[in-house]
Amino acid sequence: MDGNSSAVRTLIEQLGRLPGIGRKSAERLAFHLMRVSKQEALALAEAIRNVRENVRYCRECFNLAESELCEICRDPARDRQRICVVEQPRDLLALEQAGVYRGLYHVLLGRIAPLEGIGPDQLTIDALVERVRLGEFQEVIMATNPTVEGDGTALYISNQLSDYSVEITRLARGITIGSVLELTNREILADALSGRQKM
Amino acid sequence: MDGNSSAVRTLIEQLGRLPGIGRKSAERLAFHLMRVSKQEALALAEAIRNVRENVRYCRECFNLAESELCEICRDPARDRQRICVVEQPRDLLALEQAGVYRGLYHVLLGRIAPLEGIGPDQLTIDALVERVRLGEFQEVIMATNPTVEGDGTALYISNQLSDYSVEITRLARGITIGSVLELTNREILADALSGRQKM
Repeated sequence: MDGNSSAVRTLIEQLGRLPGIGRKSAERLAFHLMRVSKQEALALAEAIRNVRENVRYCRECFNLAESELCEICRDPARDRQRICVVEQPRDLLALEQAGVYRGLYHVLLGRIAPLEGIGPDQLTIDALVERVRLGEFQEVIMATNPTVEGDGTALYISNQLSDYSVEITRLARGITIGSVLELTNREILADALSGRQKM
Repeated sequence: MDGNSSAVRTLIEQLGRLPGIGRKSAERLAFHLMRVSKQEALALAEAIRNVRENVRYCRECFNLAESELCEICRDPARDRQRICVVEQPRDLLALEQAGVYRGLYHVLLGRIAPLEGIGPDQLTIDALVERVRLGEFQEVIMATNPTVEGDGTALYISNQLSDYSVEITRLARGITIGSVLELTNREILADALSGRQKM
């Protein structure tokens, strides 16, 4: 017994299973949920339930969706000649929030990671190849993460797509805006040099 | 439209209202809840609902409870001659987890904070005075936070209790175990000197 009701203990345990939420944070969040209006606390419970009852993957691009197709695939204003390949829905969200891209997406739901036993078959690569085969895309933009595994996944996919007459590009790499050259590491400088552009 | 279903947007919004959870963390938590088993996600929703449906304040000490009396007030093994006054249920939890106290508690549900418009009437001080009046307590231990407001609250309460034959104490203050004197600030050293104990 630690002096709290078992309902509170259960809530602290459940909150503590969230990523980045330690024991102390879980306690703080639980007491917060006890203190706010009942309506506000139940709104969070309901939002979790609603997401898990009603959200699925888009049939076309594997973004999160509340119907067969996600909002982006259903949006007639999107550029349907471009498809941007990302690892996770949260990567798509980052691009959408930046507001710099108006084409379609394809969410891989992961990346090829042999050390974790994740091969191409566990991703949505076959569906992407099929989309490219059937569709009239001009360009596939690889926007996997700039990591060893993300790069490997992009390379694998570009090989899979090499038979189709579609341009395959990837996000530019180089120095970041606002950064300082003297504090920029070797890998970034190498990317920036090898990808240098005409002024 | 930011490219996500409205259920996901709602969940991100609700998570973002939790203390210490910013926009990015809320997104990360939402995608986590999408990725884990449905059972695990719903367990969190249910824990929140259960706490808000079933948890109330203990009639006696205002700790969180699932029945009229909290687990501590119901526990026959607790020392019923001592009562420890804390600001919040989470303070009680910290003391219980330390396992160094076996008496009863009284939770004030706040502290006197004139700048926030919180006066003694909004706390459970009257109920505490009534408990002391009716009960057979030997000692009331003030365990409010060592802040200006916590100290002020403790002082106010000890004045309210001065008519009763009960010993009023407060938690010791001084240097903390494992700390380094040369890095200890003036206020802590002053507390440690003025409260010095016989060896």
